Amino acid sequence: MKRFLDLADFSREEVLSLLELARRLERQAEPHALTGKLLGLLFFNPSLRTLASMQAAMARLGGNSFVITPGQGSWQLETRRGVVMDGAAAEHVAEAIPVLAGYCDALGIRMFANGTDLAADLADSAFSAIAGLSDRPLINLESAITHPCQALADWKTLDDLAVPRAGRFVLSWAWHPRALPLAVPAAALHMAALRGMEVVVLRPEGFALPPAIMERARRAAASSGGSVTETSERAAALKGAEVIYVKEWGATERYGDAAADAQLRGALRAWCVRNDWFADAPDCHVMHCLPVRRNSAIADEVLDSARSVVQRAAYNRLPAQMAVLHQLLRP
Amino acid sequence: MKRFLDLADFSREEVLSLLELARRLERQAEPHALTGKLLGLLFFNPSLRTLASMQAAMARLGGNSFVITPGQGSWQLETRRGVVMDGAAAEHVAEAIPVLAGYCDALGIRMFANGTDLAADLADSAFSAIAGLSDRPLINLESAITHPCQALADWKTLDDLAVPRAGRFVLSWAWHPRALPLAVPAAALHMAALRGMEVVVLRPEGFALPPAIMERARRAAASSGGSVTETSERAAALKGAEVIYVKEWGATERYGDAAADAQLRGALRAWCVRNDWFADAPDCHVMHCLPVRRNSAIADEVLDSARSVVQRAAYNRLPAQMAVLHQLLRP
Amino acid sequence: MKRFLDLADFSREEVLSLLELARRLERQAEPHALTGKLLGLLFFNPSLRTLASMQAAMARLGGNSFVITPGQGSWQLETRRGVVMDGAAAEHVAEAIPVLAGYCDALGIRMFANGTDLAADLADSAFSAIAGLSDRPLINLESAITHPCQALADWKTLDDLAVPRAGRFVLSWAWHPRALPLAVPAAALHMAALRGMEVVVLRPEGFALPPAIMERARRAAASSGGSVTETSERAAALKGAEVIYVKEWGATERYGDAAADAQLRGALRAWCVRNDWFADAPDCHVMHCLPVRRNSAIADEVLDSARSVVQRAAYNRLPAQMAVLHQLLRP
Repeated sequence: MKRFLDLADFSREEVLSLLELARRLERQAEPHALTGKLLGLLFFNPSLRTLASMQAAMARLGGNSFVITPGQGSWQLETRRGVVMDGAAAEHVAEAIPVLAGYCDALGIRMFANGTDLAADLADSAFSAIAGLSDRPLINLESAITHPCQALADWKTLDDLAVPRAGRFVLSWAWHPRALPLAVPAAALHMAALRGMEVVVLRPEGFALPPAIMERARRAAASSGGSVTETSERAAALKGAEVIYVKEWGATERYGDAAADAQLRGALRAWCVRNDWFADAPDCHVMHCLPVRRNSAIADEVLDSARSVVQRAAYNRLPAQMAVLHQLLRP
Repeated sequence: MKRFLDLADFSREEVLSLLELARRLERQAEPHALTGKLLGLLFFNPSLRTLASMQAAMARLGGNSFVITPGQGSWQLETRRGVVMDGAAAEHVAEAIPVLAGYCDALGIRMFANGTDLAADLADSAFSAIAGLSDRPLINLESAITHPCQALADWKTLDDLAVPRAGRFVLSWAWHPRALPLAVPAAALHMAALRGMEVVVLRPEGFALPPAIMERARRAAASSGGSVTETSERAAALKGAEVIYVKEWGATERYGDAAADAQLRGALRAWCVRNDWFADAPDCHVMHCLPVRRNSAIADEVLDSARSVVQRAAYNRLPAQMAVLHQLLRP
Repeated sequence: MKRFLDLADFSREEVLSLLELARRLERQAEPHALTGKLLGLLFFNPSLRTLASMQAAMARLGGNSFVITPGQGSWQLETRRGVVMDGAAAEHVAEAIPVLAGYCDALGIRMFANGTDLAADLADSAFSAIAGLSDRPLINLESAITHPCQALADWKTLDDLAVPRAGRFVLSWAWHPRALPLAVPAAALHMAALRGMEVVVLRPEGFALPPAIMERARRAAASSGGSVTETSERAAALKGAEVIYVKEWGATERYGDAAADAQLRGALRAWCVRNDWFADAPDCHVMHCLPVRRNSAIADEVLDSARSVVQRAAYNRLPAQMAVLHQLLRP
């Protein structure tokens, strides 16, 4: 394995093998596996779990890491090609990425969607352009359209909870004060589809996931014996669900139109997950990639109940990423 | 030892044992004591000594650490319970704390007083609420009302200087442009009392330490053969003093009332420690937890003299915290 | 070696010996050379290469490091002596530097020119004052007037490229939206002179390097068999050049006068290095310390050509600094 950029780049068997490695590293420490190895971490956007767990994963395996945050102690970076740089950005990624890659054995990069050009974000254009600037081992720490470390940790969480392969997995939209990117819903959808689950995307009108995302997930589901459907009917969606995976995202039909998005979501504050959502899904687990806004996306009564497995999923970032790093950096 | 939250949680003998360990680690390196161990550091407030010395302490013992600063590369964190999170904070400590704790072997947290509700700050309500969110080993890196790492380092400094157990220890208020928290004065007072010293709190009218703090220190003094008194008479207080521990704090009678505080302190710029304070205490050492504003709280002539031991005290954060980490993390 | 503050502090032979060590460490890893050693890094100014490569250098040698950024998670630091500190700065370097130095085995400090007082900046007054506050091993990570880690890496780059000792080295001014400091041009000039090269400083009128800098470089050149001249004639300067070292800096005749500087540079946007600069220097390498503003200082067509060695030079920061750290910290 040379790069970990998208779970969709891997076959079901390759993912299962990574998860087996994650479980082994969870059971049995390998504090010298990556002695002398160095991971560079470049964060264009804020982070808590990724920032902490990537450093932790390297440390647990005996390696080291450094963190660069453009604009905070480091230069603002330009990403556009061909521009005359006479504004705020002091440096271009065309220099910064290969230079940073040259100092370390692998690079992790986090760069959210710009949220204005749907086609560009679906193609992950910005991240792909950056990924092409170096041939070092590279880890996607969340790009415009995917978040493979999160997806791998989520899959492990489903396994830990013994959620059946063919169980019902509801990816549900939830309310948030602003339009958030599609990376996590796209990644979670693909993960559950590739795992072979009965996937239902539950979202209000105007928030359907783009056809390209749905199509790719349907192909993954077909190859794994699962299925992908979508609806805006909550009760029907949740009936018999094993898992509800809660996530906020922006209006897709008017992508990048903040005013239209705000108007649509203004009427949707009822999309905050509460106990009464689970009348017909008594044992349903609640997942969320975090950070979650309490009582906006999910109510306290749910997050503080045994139903919530958000902390376990967050913890699983550590063994999942240890497996990724082990695969990338062990000779 | 499972948590290091307040020096007052430990008996005199337990503190002496920690100090013995600190001296041993100072004399004799143990660069592999904490191999494979990981410390998470969460800073809600700025820091220089704590930030550097906690990372240094882990590194000196062969372990690793990571730093999270909410709002600076990481999400702003909500601490209030039950709130509808639709403002600036993206994540709640109810998730963030257990998630971070799950990645490491011990967590250190720094969270200053909010400075508006004296009862809440005296009870250390905010920090206690956070401490209750995880059962991992936890270190208080300064909370609303105490700073145990500083207090332990201060005690070691007194020992290093061979200050007699029963020596006179003056905790003196000093001028600062704003009201500062009570954590360090409360911690220093308790430390000197528990050490068995003759403690005098010297402060202007309106800045008396709250009765609860004085009472607890008096009990510690009684158990250790020391005493605690207070006065606003500088000359009397300093006569024969072995140590003056200088600290700035806010007006306590009108706690949280910035205007009242500003009016009171407006007349108190003479509370800047100068050489002529020591007429009747020729060998008196000057301590301060740092950061100190030169020529506001302490004059250059004092800080640049042999009387000042502020650098030695700051250095002692390292062996003191190495001892704490060794106790918390060694099997 | 106790301090690495200026390449001019070292003889040609001492530099050659450091470069030999750098090449050895590049060929053959020494992952345990600095086990248990700790480097403190204090950044008053933004950084990408220095920030990443100093941490990388310590990690590659088995050591550790921590980073302090005043005003970003740490206190703002006062540097003026004798001032009454009642403003924004909470701490003075007179405390901060020795305290940080006490926690580690070596300290690295980055502090740019203030850019208003040429004599003070030429004397490196601010950095020297700070350097005098501790006797720990110290590394200059760029001060007002020099950047020795960059200069050492640049020399190694010239060696890597087999640029002849007596080859023609053109240090050329380039356009930038603002006046930048003299540290890198001064350091690069001295480096090339000490290497024994035929050095030409190419700059527009009003941007001549200060006589003190030119004089010192001429003395270094004389001792090494090289030469130093200056001109504003581009074609003559570049004819037969082996290397053009591109750098932006502020108007020196009206140092610190932003309006005068802006007026002068307003007419100089043609000082952006393009392919047609190399008509009479077909094999000329292009160097730049980075960060570089594309199409302001150097055009894409140059940076994206084989002529550019900016990434190689940036990479060389790692082995160069590993050599410095090895010399400073190995018993």
